Amino acid sequence: MSDDKPKGDMDPEAFRREGYRVVDWIARYFEDPGRYPVMSRVKPGEVRAALPASAPESGESFDAILEDFERVIVPGITHWNHPGFFAYFAITGSGPGVLGEMLSAALNAQGMLWRTSPSVTELEEVVMAWLRQLMGLPASFQGVIYDTASVSSLHALAAARQAAVPGVRAEGLAGRGLPRYRVYCSEHAHSSIDKAVILIGLGHDALRKIPADAEFRMRADALQAAIAEDRRAGIVPLAVVATVGTTSTTSVDPVEAIADVCARERAWLHVDCAYAGVAAIIPEYRHVLRGVDRADSVVVNPHKWLFTPFDLSAFYCRRMDALVEAFSLTPEYLRTSETGTVRNLMDTGVQLGRRFRALKLWMVLRYFGADGIRARLGEHMRLARLFASWVDADPDFERLAPVPFSVVCFRARPGGRQWSENELERLNQGLLDRLNASGEVFLSHTKLDGRFVLRLAVGNLRTEERHVRRAWELVKRSAPPSGSDAFPR
Amino acid sequence: MSDDKPKGDMDPEAFRREGYRVVDWIARYFEDPGRYPVMSRVKPGEVRAALPASAPESGESFDAILEDFERVIVPGITHWNHPGFFAYFAITGSGPGVLGEMLSAALNAQGMLWRTSPSVTELEEVVMAWLRQLMGLPASFQGVIYDTASVSSLHALAAARQAAVPGVRAEGLAGRGLPRYRVYCSEHAHSSIDKAVILIGLGHDALRKIPADAEFRMRADALQAAIAEDRRAGIVPLAVVATVGTTSTTSVDPVEAIADVCARERAWLHVDCAYAGVAAIIPEYRHVLRGVDRADSVVVNPHKWLFTPFDLSAFYCRRMDALVEAFSLTPEYLRTSETGTVRNLMDTGVQLGRRFRALKLWMVLRYFGADGIRARLGEHMRLARLFASWVDADPDFERLAPVPFSVVCFRARPGGRQWSENELERLNQGLLDRLNASGEVFLSHTKLDGRFVLRLAVGNLRTEERHVRRAWELVKRSAPPSGSDAFPR
Repeated sequence: MSDDKPKGDMDPEAFRREGYRVVDWIARYFEDPGRYPVMSRVKPGEVRAALPASAPESGESFDAILEDFERVIVPGITHWNHPGFFAYFAITGSGPGVLGEMLSAALNAQGMLWRTSPSVTELEEVVMAWLRQLMGLPASFQGVIYDTASVSSLHALAAARQAAVPGVRAEGLAGRGLPRYRVYCSEHAHSSIDKAVILIGLGHDALRKIPADAEFRMRADALQAAIAEDRRAGIVPLAVVATVGTTSTTSVDPVEAIADVCARERAWLHVDCAYAGVAAIIPEYRHVLRGVDRADSVVVNPHKWLFTPFDLSAFYCRRMDALVEAFSLTPEYLRTSETGTVRNLMDTGVQLGRRFRALKLWMVLRYFGADGIRARLGEHMRLARLFASWVDADPDFERLAPVPFSVVCFRARPGGRQWSENELERLNQGLLDRLNASGEVFLSHTKLDGRFVLRLAVGNLRTEERHVRRAWELVKRSAPPSGSDAFPR
Repeated sequence: MSDDKPKGDMDPEAFRREGYRVVDWIARYFEDPGRYPVMSRVKPGEVRAALPASAPESGESFDAILEDFERVIVPGITHWNHPGFFAYFAITGSGPGVLGEMLSAALNAQGMLWRTSPSVTELEEVVMAWLRQLMGLPASFQGVIYDTASVSSLHALAAARQAAVPGVRAEGLAGRGLPRYRVYCSEHAHSSIDKAVILIGLGHDALRKIPADAEFRMRADALQAAIAEDRRAGIVPLAVVATVGTTSTTSVDPVEAIADVCARERAWLHVDCAYAGVAAIIPEYRHVLRGVDRADSVVVNPHKWLFTPFDLSAFYCRRMDALVEAFSLTPEYLRTSETGTVRNLMDTGVQLGRRFRALKLWMVLRYFGADGIRARLGEHMRLARLFASWVDADPDFERLAPVPFSVVCFRARPGGRQWSENELERLNQGLLDRLNASGEVFLSHTKLDGRFVLRLAVGNLRTEERHVRRAWELVKRSAPPSGSDAFPR
């Protein structure tokens, strides 16, 4: 190695200087993310084409990198920070959360073992207990942090499999003459449940979708009937996934009745409240988690509606033994003198390495406080109800689902003529495309009983009443007027 | 909601002020992480006990939070940034990488779909192509970024299962009269392979560990014999996992010979070069990936030895169709007008949500440049060889494995008397404990053919020759002298 080549990292003074610039950039960005179009306007391939095909041979200045970041990367960003972001579930990387991520990145602690950073393990225990208490869940739930709800639910079903299928860890599922197994969820459960069932080797057909009632909630009677039918066919119920806050409509499955069925059938009950679980932090919404105390596992995502930068999924389990049995495996090179006396995060999941994710959630919970969180969640739900009231009052629109939280499902249906479902889909798809092309708002859609539906999801800390009002103005302006026959492109 | 309660996020001016403070903290930290004991000295439960049992009811100042961070959290950190960190695989969250994480956290972009941030998808394609070229892998490999190598290898084996087991996605593994399947790896493969095989439902017994040669490399002849034996018993070979840079000794499996076996047996070949793959960026080390161009999938972790903050695992696949077939699943609420014409990251894995991880890797590759990376990796390997030369020259020590990269496996074996293996284990465990209690260095151990071995892994950007010299001084000082009979506690 020649002496004139740098041997180490960016020096600390340069880090300070560039760090200030990055903080300045972020602060200016946070002043008004609304200056950008919310949904990126780049064309497919445009970002890729603007960048060199190969890495540079020699190092470049951070100046040049930051310039390209602004020039090439930022235009290709869809701004989840934008107050007009109403698509999917709106999220917030709040100030204290971002500061937590900065410190976590700098510490670069990897928490696979207690000794590789005791604070990673123990702060995770602390914040998971805080969050559990805030939501009113009992201490029988132990918590562990994963990256996404997909991974949390995957672990839930892997633990359920471990608990239900004798010898599965050693012998697996194939070639053993085992019966067929079934997992149940409503037709409105999240696609991550499908993926998890496929991945753990049960097969997609093993997931039985239970019909929902008129308000998109799983029918517990239909669940019971499906299990009975399956049992008659020799199929063993392995788990039921109930959802509190489904993706399309945020409907709430009847967890108590489902828990009764699970208790009777000795099936693992996993509750996916990735989005809506945090609503239970507000006393008047505590009831949405009724029955969840009887679940075997629960997932709630602070990176969704709890102002925590992506990613951080909180997984709670009352049968941590099954999770540990499913995954614990200590090769010699990871054995420590503490093994057996402390918690090692690697024992509770498929991922060996663990980021220090608890730090950002700890900062968020402390900075906003329980009352600050309640006020903000309550305001988001007020804004959604307000928007719903405008939809309800307008004869050219209809609402297609209740609004239990902060998401409104609606569509245009201009008065003055009859519409076929096909026509309404074209009309509302056009409306959605025009709204999203405005750059001021970004909404997404779903289908409910075959009907194409727009979703307005309030969830970003920057979203105020004026933004929701503006969204309604844009919706009104972009929809065909009453009595219209014209189909916009 | 009362009017006197805050409704939004930390305001941008406050963010700027606190951001500067955090950057100052990090810059001071980066000046000398060596001022802290490398392995945390807190006792189990100490961090937890220093924090309140419940979240605060009212929000707190960021001042108070930062104070507790310094007072409670930092003492519980094991400093992966410390130049004396020689345990496991030493890593670096470099300056440009940390700045990338700051911007990524602030943008809070979630890249599940192309449209939810085109830059997340396309910059990932760009940097994955850059890294692939740097390592000399052909363009037939497509890349996708996951969090950890555990998850990368899980996806490799899930894709292998998809390719090998007819109908597995729909029908799963149980109750179908399928044959038994087998996955093969060496006895030195990483524990994540065990976990993946368990998770996808094959069962731990389906993983057959192939014996290694005297230099800890999988024996291709033993692999061929094991497959033949299994076939005679009706067991179908599903995949082989070869390792370039095993965890214990960084040995390199004979990938070419293994690829021959896989081709003959039509088994998926996955190569785990999570740690050592990046060595191929140096032309003289290109050969360590010989044969990897014939693999079906490869994992290399920039968060290990490529200066990228944890987490970022690069997964390459030549049969992306199998991966997509295994995981692609588009519910209505995630359907977009671009579906089918662009790449949506959610189609290539179990995780729906994706962080903007590519940004930090892009900044690292540009800031250091290919030649800067080569120089740094080369220097780490020089330092390891230097340490190995001291071990080799000292009659009271012995080296227990070759040093192909930047890890040295050694132990004390003081001259002047005979030792049993039990005595040597006690002696070297004592040596390791004293070294790690010094606060100046942190080493880990493994076992090789029943022998307790210390590992010194060079990999942090701050580690210079003087730190490796100091480590050797401490090793010498902490070991019993030649001729000694005394067993230190």
